[in-house]
Amino acid sequence: MERMMPGDDQQPVFVLVRPQMGENIGAAARAMWNFGLERMRIIAPRDGWPNQKAVAMASGAGRLLDEAQICATTPEAIGDCVYVFATTARARGLTKPVFTPERAMRMAAEKCAAGAPVAVMFGPERAGLENDDIARANAVINVPVNPEYASLNLAQCVLLTSYEWQRARAGITPERMDMAKTDFAEQIEIEKLAEHYQERLDQAGFFYPEPKAEGMKISLRNMWSRMPLTRADVQMLHGVMRQMVRWKNRGE
Amino acid sequence: MERMMPGDDQQPVFVLVRPQMGENIGAAARAMWNFGLERMRIIAPRDGWPNQKAVAMASGAGRLLDEAQICATTPEAIGDCVYVFATTARARGLTKPVFTPERAMRMAAEKCAAGAPVAVMFGPERAGLENDDIARANAVINVPVNPEYASLNLAQCVLLTSYEWQRARAGITPERMDMAKTDFAEQIEIEKLAEHYQERLDQAGFFYPEPKAEGMKISLRNMWSRMPLTRADVQMLHGVMRQMVRWKNRGE
Repeated sequence: MERMMPGDDQQPVFVLVRPQMGENIGAAARAMWNFGLERMRIIAPRDGWPNQKAVAMASGAGRLLDEAQICATTPEAIGDCVYVFATTARARGLTKPVFTPERAMRMAAEKCAAGAPVAVMFGPERAGLENDDIARANAVINVPVNPEYASLNLAQCVLLTSYEWQRARAGITPERMDMAKTDFAEQIEIEKLAEHYQERLDQAGFFYPEPKAEGMKISLRNMWSRMPLTRADVQMLHGVMRQMVRWKNRGE
Repeated sequence: MERMMPGDDQQPVFVLVRPQMGENIGAAARAMWNFGLERMRIIAPRDGWPNQKAVAMASGAGRLLDEAQICATTPEAIGDCVYVFATTARARGLTKPVFTPERAMRMAAEKCAAGAPVAVMFGPERAGLENDDIARANAVINVPVNPEYASLNLAQCVLLTSYEWQRARAGITPERMDMAKTDFAEQIEIEKLAEHYQERLDQAGFFYPEPKAEGMKISLRNMWSRMPLTRADVQMLHGVMRQMVRWKNRGE
C-alpha cells in the first residue's frame, strides 16, 4: 500500500481489524465523521467489500467507506504509521503503556501535528484484538468502564475515541455560552425594575407588617440583583406588573 | 412522584423524553450502566411499557429498565430535581447557558455531591426535545460535533454524557464537593410558580395579542427556569402575585 500523502497524516487513521458486521463498519464511519475523522482502513472484513449493509448504515458518512483502504493484514494496514494505538477492553498481560482515550488522543494530536502518521486499531466485535495485533501497537487504549459491566460495542468504542480526538484537537473545548451574545440588563435597568416593583407593592400593601417592611424590601431588591436578567426579562417583568395594575384599575 | 431517597441523588437521573424505539431505550440503559449510571426515567414511551425490544437490547443492564420510573409528563419526571440539563443538537433561540458534556457533568457531579438532585433530559430520536421541554431546563448540553455532519443517535448521546459523568466522578475532589448549601427551589416549586403567574396573567389579559400568547408563555416559563431561585425567592414571588390580586379585589 502506498505511503500516505503529505497532509493526509494530519489526523489519525482508524483501523478496523477483521470487523464482522457491515452495520458496525457503517456505524463506525458515522461515529468518526461526527467528530471530523475521515481516514479509515479495514483489515479483512468478514463479509467482503464493498458491503451494502455498511453503506446503508453509514448514511451521510458513506464517503469514508468509499475512500477506506482495504488491507489483508495488520502489518500492511499500519505499515506506514509511526505510532499505533490498540484499543482493548482489558489489558492483556502484554507489557504496554495503557492510556485513557483522552490521554491517547492528546498524544495522537501532538504526533499528527508533528507530521507523524498515527493509527488506532479496533478489534472484531466479539473477541477484540488478538495479542498478535496488540503486540504490533506502541500503546494500548483502555476505556475506563464500569468493572461490573463492560459492554461497549465497536462503534461505541470508535465514537468515544473520535470524541476524545476532537476534544484533543480543539484543546479543552471552552464551554460555549449562548448567553454570551445575550443582552444582559445593566445595573440601572435592574434598579428601575426593583423600584417599579417596590413602589407598586407598597401601594398594594405588600410590605406588611410595618416592622418587617424594610427587610422585605431588601430581600426583594436582593433577589432582582442576584438574577441573571436579560433586557428582555426586565421588559417582561415590567409588563407583568403594569398589567396587574391595569387589571386592578379595570376594577373587574 | 415522591421525593428521591437520600443517597439516591448521588448520581443524576437520565430522563428519556418520549422515546420511540425500544431498542434505543435498551441501548441507552447499556450506555449508562457502562459508566455506572443506573437511574433512568422515561416519559411517555411511544410503544408503551414494559417494552420487550428494550429488554432484549439492554442485555446485562435490564435492571435499569426494571427500576426505571415511567412518567406521563416532563414536569412529573423532573419535579423533584433541583438542576436540570436538556441535551440538544442545536441551540434553539431560548436563552439558556449551553455547556459541553464535560463541563455539564462536572457541574452535575458537584451538585450531586452536595445532595442536589440533578436530571439530564434526552429528546425523542427524530425531533429531539421540544422548546416546551427545554424551557423547563436550567441549562443546555450540546455535544460539539462536526458542523458538516451531526448524526449522534439517542444512545450515543447518552453514552457520551455517561462517559463524561464517569470522568467527572473520578475527577471530583472533596473541596469541590462542598458547594453552596443554599436552599434552592425544586423544579416542582418553579413549575407551580410559573403556573401561578401564567394563570393570573391570563386572567389579567397579559398574553395578548392571541398569536403571540404561546410565545409569551414559553418566554416567561423559560425565565423562571433559568433563574437560580431559592425557596425563599419562590415564596416571595408567590406573595407578590397574591398581593397584586388582593389589591385588585379590594377595588380601591
